[in-house]
Amino acid sequence: MQYENLDKNFMHGAINLASRGAGLTAPNPAVGCVIVNDCKVVGRGWTQPAGGEHAESIAINNAGSLAKGSTLYVSLEPCCHHGKTAPCTDAIINAGIRKVVFSVNDPDPRVCGKGEEALKNAGIRVCKGVLEKEAYRVNYGFFKRLETGWPLFSLKFGTTNDGRLTIEQTSNRWITGSIARRFGHMLRSTHDAIIVGSKTANIDNPQLDCRLGGNTNHFSHQPIRIVLDKSLLINENSTLVKTANELAPTWVFTAATADKKKIQLLQKKGVKVIVCKTLENHIFCVEVATYMGKSGLNSALIEGGGQIAASFFTADLIDRIYSIRAPSFSGEDGIPSVGRMPVLIDNQKFTRTDFKVLGNDVLEILERKVLN
Amino acid sequence: MQYENLDKNFMHGAINLASRGAGLTAPNPAVGCVIVNDCKVVGRGWTQPAGGEHAESIAINNAGSLAKGSTLYVSLEPCCHHGKTAPCTDAIINAGIRKVVFSVNDPDPRVCGKGEEALKNAGIRVCKGVLEKEAYRVNYGFFKRLETGWPLFSLKFGTTNDGRLTIEQTSNRWITGSIARRFGHMLRSTHDAIIVGSKTANIDNPQLDCRLGGNTNHFSHQPIRIVLDKSLLINENSTLVKTANELAPTWVFTAATADKKKIQLLQKKGVKVIVCKTLENHIFCVEVATYMGKSGLNSALIEGGGQIAASFFTADLIDRIYSIRAPSFSGEDGIPSVGRMPVLIDNQKFTRTDFKVLGNDVLEILERKVLN
Repeated sequence: MQYENLDKNFMHGAINLASRGAGLTAPNPAVGCVIVNDCKVVGRGWTQPAGGEHAESIAINNAGSLAKGSTLYVSLEPCCHHGKTAPCTDAIINAGIRKVVFSVNDPDPRVCGKGEEALKNAGIRVCKGVLEKEAYRVNYGFFKRLETGWPLFSLKFGTTNDGRLTIEQTSNRWITGSIARRFGHMLRSTHDAIIVGSKTANIDNPQLDCRLGGNTNHFSHQPIRIVLDKSLLINENSTLVKTANELAPTWVFTAATADKKKIQLLQKKGVKVIVCKTLENHIFCVEVATYMGKSGLNSALIEGGGQIAASFFTADLIDRIYSIRAPSFSGEDGIPSVGRMPVLIDNQKFTRTDFKVLGNDVLEILERKVLN
Repeated sequence: MQYENLDKNFMHGAINLASRGAGLTAPNPAVGCVIVNDCKVVGRGWTQPAGGEHAESIAINNAGSLAKGSTLYVSLEPCCHHGKTAPCTDAIINAGIRKVVFSVNDPDPRVCGKGEEALKNAGIRVCKGVLEKEAYRVNYGFFKRLETGWPLFSLKFGTTNDGRLTIEQTSNRWITGSIARRFGHMLRSTHDAIIVGSKTANIDNPQLDCRLGGNTNHFSHQPIRIVLDKSLLINENSTLVKTANELAPTWVFTAATADKKKIQLLQKKGVKVIVCKTLENHIFCVEVATYMGKSGLNSALIEGGGQIAASFFTADLIDRIYSIRAPSFSGEDGIPSVGRMPVLIDNQKFTRTDFKVLGNDVLEILERKVLN
């Protein structure tokens, strides 16, 4: 029992390190690794942004000669194939690691059990399944994409207590407070993409970048900004279009009926325009999700407005909801946080997994029941 | 300091006893009393339902001969006038109490400092102001009525996460779960009246009584059921009308333009009909509030629908909000929890004072900032 608890403790450390890569590693999963020699942590590492080094090789380098004879804890099965980096299994074997503890098998068909086997064949003791659930959660987007072809979709909204977004579309007034807004930037930093509708893009004219203290705003570290815009109404002078070449990639999904000249104009300004076949809202969302999955995106944050939220609910694509509420009331003239939907999303679908006070506001995190 | 903490501890006990009378004592306040002799509690009491004995005399009887030389803790200044009961100050003096500790002066002009003086004149040591804020809160409705003429108004609603009451008005489906619904019955039991609109009365056809385990359903212990019904649309066969003589008093507020024959018909069935002068929603609410205050009601629970909530918000009459949310989503076809209002109630007006998990649902209690 003592050993088991130690394993859990060290795996917790590895999973915490893994979460540092959230939103930065796609199409790779965010993995964390801890190397333990004689009950002391001698090496640590986490997956670097897309194409960079893996958690295991960083931790092994960090441990140096102390890696020999040690136990390696990693939140996902080590890879055994040549990608942009050399196989982690080779690095582990060469470093003289005695035992490997990992949480879950990598669902990538190039790995999936083969990494585990390679280690065992080299005479390394392997133990798996430690904190499986926690490791799954930290990479839920990656697992979901490999299983279904779609990324994880999180819906975020900040509303009045009676569920309204703003009073007037032209109003610049914030409903939620500064702590809730900073939380929103943290959410952006942990997702691969941000989704809004063209109405939000034009009226709110947002930057949709992650602006947190310490954030370098480096182009490659910003989430991709995605606009759903079937009629291609996005204003060519909107901030999203104007900063497509400098701040963060901007993708616009539109319908086959969209004006070809407008498409070219946007492309010239650095916007990536993706044409979808259908016009029905919920099928449009599924096409967007499929394209995002194929592009290797593991997660996306839906930031509004209410019609986009309703379309993703209707397509049954929402996995997680960050619902933030201020202690204010707008009455029915306020803009609904969720637009028209053909059905009620009843309380069998989502469950509350967390609940936080953010200054004057309250955050509820709801997740699909299958996630728990 | 040690003595002060002891005083606070015993006053906490008195205030807890006071809360047992909430919703039962109007027009009186709910008062609690603890008698302490040699650091031991020797007597306890709380105000009995309207017209019944006061907390102090019950506690003194409970203490018997041990009251002599003891300290009496009471959550409100003892009364000194002859009402339906004899003055509590007389009982305290006659019992030989040595010291009286109370929280706040009774704002009733017949008492207000005179009770305190009577005790001092009899040579009893008096200490006041202990847990003043807590004692004020437990009787906020009583204090508010004496200061403004209006009772405390609490608004309660159970909604989807996006702030909707139900999908269809005819639907009988509950949005919130059984724990939240039991909490709703507890709220009814601690308010002097329940308010709904005629739409809710006719469509939901509720009983609006307090149905908790252990509740005797005795007529005099049920809150008064109030229907706001300017056009006198209430169905004469609705449950509220049919049970007016047996379950709980039923009051209908209507406008001067209401059909006289319908008024007579309702009166014949045991309904009390009160005619207000005006037609404007928010002035109508103020007239209702004034009538309720004059009738000695200390508190009322507004249970719907959204238009009634909006009218009370607009009249600036809402003091406390019990907002319960389920993890479901209806989209904009759901009925808004707050109807049309001319202004935003911004987050300067209310603050969150409590926050509870009720099964799958979440409760937020918001209160006017001045209450804190």
